[in-house]
Amino acid sequence: MNIVDVDLGARSYSIFVGSGLLADPDFLRQRVESNQVMIVSNETIAPLYLSLLENAFGDRKLAIAILRDGEEFKTFASLDAIITNLLEQRFDRSCTLIALGGGVVGDVTGFAAASYQRGVNFVQIPTTLLAQVDSSVGGKTAVNHSLGKNMIGAFHQPTSVVADISTLKSLPDRELRAGIAEIIKYGIIRDYEFFVWLEEHIESLLRLDEEPIAFAIERSCRDKADVVAKDELESGMRALLNFGHTFGHAIENVLGYGQWLHGEAVACGMCMAAELSNLMGMISDDDLERINALIARAGLPLKPPSDIDPNLLMDAMQVDKKNRDGRIRLVLMQAIGTCFVTQDYPNDSFELVLRGVEDNSNVRS
Amino acid sequence: MNIVDVDLGARSYSIFVGSGLLADPDFLRQRVESNQVMIVSNETIAPLYLSLLENAFGDRKLAIAILRDGEEFKTFASLDAIITNLLEQRFDRSCTLIALGGGVVGDVTGFAAASYQRGVNFVQIPTTLLAQVDSSVGGKTAVNHSLGKNMIGAFHQPTSVVADISTLKSLPDRELRAGIAEIIKYGIIRDYEFFVWLEEHIESLLRLDEEPIAFAIERSCRDKADVVAKDELESGMRALLNFGHTFGHAIENVLGYGQWLHGEAVACGMCMAAELSNLMGMISDDDLERINALIARAGLPLKPPSDIDPNLLMDAMQVDKKNRDGRIRLVLMQAIGTCFVTQDYPNDSFELVLRGVEDNSNVRS
Repeated sequence: MNIVDVDLGARSYSIFVGSGLLADPDFLRQRVESNQVMIVSNETIAPLYLSLLENAFGDRKLAIAILRDGEEFKTFASLDAIITNLLEQRFDRSCTLIALGGGVVGDVTGFAAASYQRGVNFVQIPTTLLAQVDSSVGGKTAVNHSLGKNMIGAFHQPTSVVADISTLKSLPDRELRAGIAEIIKYGIIRDYEFFVWLEEHIESLLRLDEEPIAFAIERSCRDKADVVAKDELESGMRALLNFGHTFGHAIENVLGYGQWLHGEAVACGMCMAAELSNLMGMISDDDLERINALIARAGLPLKPPSDIDPNLLMDAMQVDKKNRDGRIRLVLMQAIGTCFVTQDYPNDSFELVLRGVEDNSNVRS
Repeated sequence: MNIVDVDLGARSYSIFVGSGLLADPDFLRQRVESNQVMIVSNETIAPLYLSLLENAFGDRKLAIAILRDGEEFKTFASLDAIITNLLEQRFDRSCTLIALGGGVVGDVTGFAAASYQRGVNFVQIPTTLLAQVDSSVGGKTAVNHSLGKNMIGAFHQPTSVVADISTLKSLPDRELRAGIAEIIKYGIIRDYEFFVWLEEHIESLLRLDEEPIAFAIERSCRDKADVVAKDELESGMRALLNFGHTFGHAIENVLGYGQWLHGEAVACGMCMAAELSNLMGMISDDDLERINALIARAGLPLKPPSDIDPNLLMDAMQVDKKNRDGRIRLVLMQAIGTCFVTQDYPNDSFELVLRGVEDNSNVRS
């Protein structure tokens, strides 16, 4: 088991990465002090791992909330269901919520923990690769609104994150690939050495070879923890973690949540951000090619669906949380491993990237 | 104009108390840096003061959200209406929300500001006495749930509080009295000197004499700010501010929100807490009598409605946020000016107080 410490003063916590952690009741019990424990999961994950947690926390007052599976259930309604359950069980401020599942379960549970009685403890047990390397770390919690993703939420840090890589064996191949998108992101935004390592090991990650996958998760968590520790509330460099996300969220929003996986949209968004950086002369054709090649080897999309309306994409990007005073803020590249946030880019290049395949086929050739 | 500073490190802010502040556009403009301003008010207050704010912020991108008036609209639905409006206006994280109204408007607006895009700035402009001396100060925000009051919320500090005492002239007499309940509370929990002052000036407060009302608001805000600065997240002494509230919330809950005003329920709750303290031998009959007399002079209720079911009251108290592991925590008195939080009290005395008028007529005589 490897431990990554997230240094946030009074809100510091540890990420535990290892194999078979959920099968260790003593380890799990040590993660939760409270006598009142609610496990929140979804209908896909609960049949697989809930019994392990029920076994570990059988000595506590235990409540279970099972959400339906999918991004479309990351809503006020799911939040309300959890809160109602907590109130019906008469759980007080000393309770702990455990999020057992992927990013949706983690985000909704985290926001429920942030807002129930103005804040209770919670533990993240991410069971998807995406959640293990990204959403479970850093304290961002939220639900979606029909007008935009993650528009209602809170910064609320977990007290522990337990990333059991054994759970990845049950993950559909498509979700595994989606998780790899966020891993690649860390290489691009701040860790060139890791990017090179990924170019050498991408196929072994797809095969879930234990040593490389554990390394990639730990390295990703270290990268993210390092950024979050320096900028917990996203007033500056934390925005770099959104590389590819402004484009990606717009794709998800226009297609309708649940059509593309978040990681797929982010992968495509990263290619678009890299392409814009290339059009602006900030990264070489060779760097753009390396990024596209790695994302292609991971089986992830390089371009938005050809029938998507670029005007709708632009429209959706207007409501991104990083925007200031109406101008869309983007994370762009200076090189592989070096990114920055900017509102300063030529509109024609931006629109060229949004218009996609037909108009920029020359760039991609 | 008097200024009370709330010392919370990076989240410090000032409370401005004075007459005619809303009629001073320059003063108002200095309170808000953002170019995107949403004013949230309700259908009772908006016709009185909204035009003053529209005048002050006519140079900004301005949005207006008008809620219906009443505690029964302190809901997820009102929160959602504000969030939807913000998204439709495409307001970004740099926006500022202004809460113009009483405690309900302040609490809902504050929670919207806490959760919109994980947190934006907000300014409190409380127009009721209750909001000026209590709910607008300290950063507690929330909406109600059908199973309990203020069960979903956040700690989110305003960037300014503007308490214009001119607005109290339009306040119904019943609401004025309700606000005085919270003022009396500060005397009881931590400020004996203020309690004595109130015994001398209670009638002039009810007449809204300018000098005493300004003094009482400022003194109350100082008392509250002092407590909040020492314990922002209510891990300890901040709970003293809930004196009378555990009983009071239960009364509101059982009667149904909107039947009794919050301050009326708190006044009654303070009498009940004082009575329990007296039954336990912690305060003298004379102290109990002084408290009851002051609350009676303010025209506030000393006892719950005689037809209320004590078992329902007990039931409702079980979900109070201050509870730990199932035992109801109460704020009780050692003397006028000295209170403490405890789970340690005789159940028979507690039940005697809940059963109310018939059984304890001897105590009250």
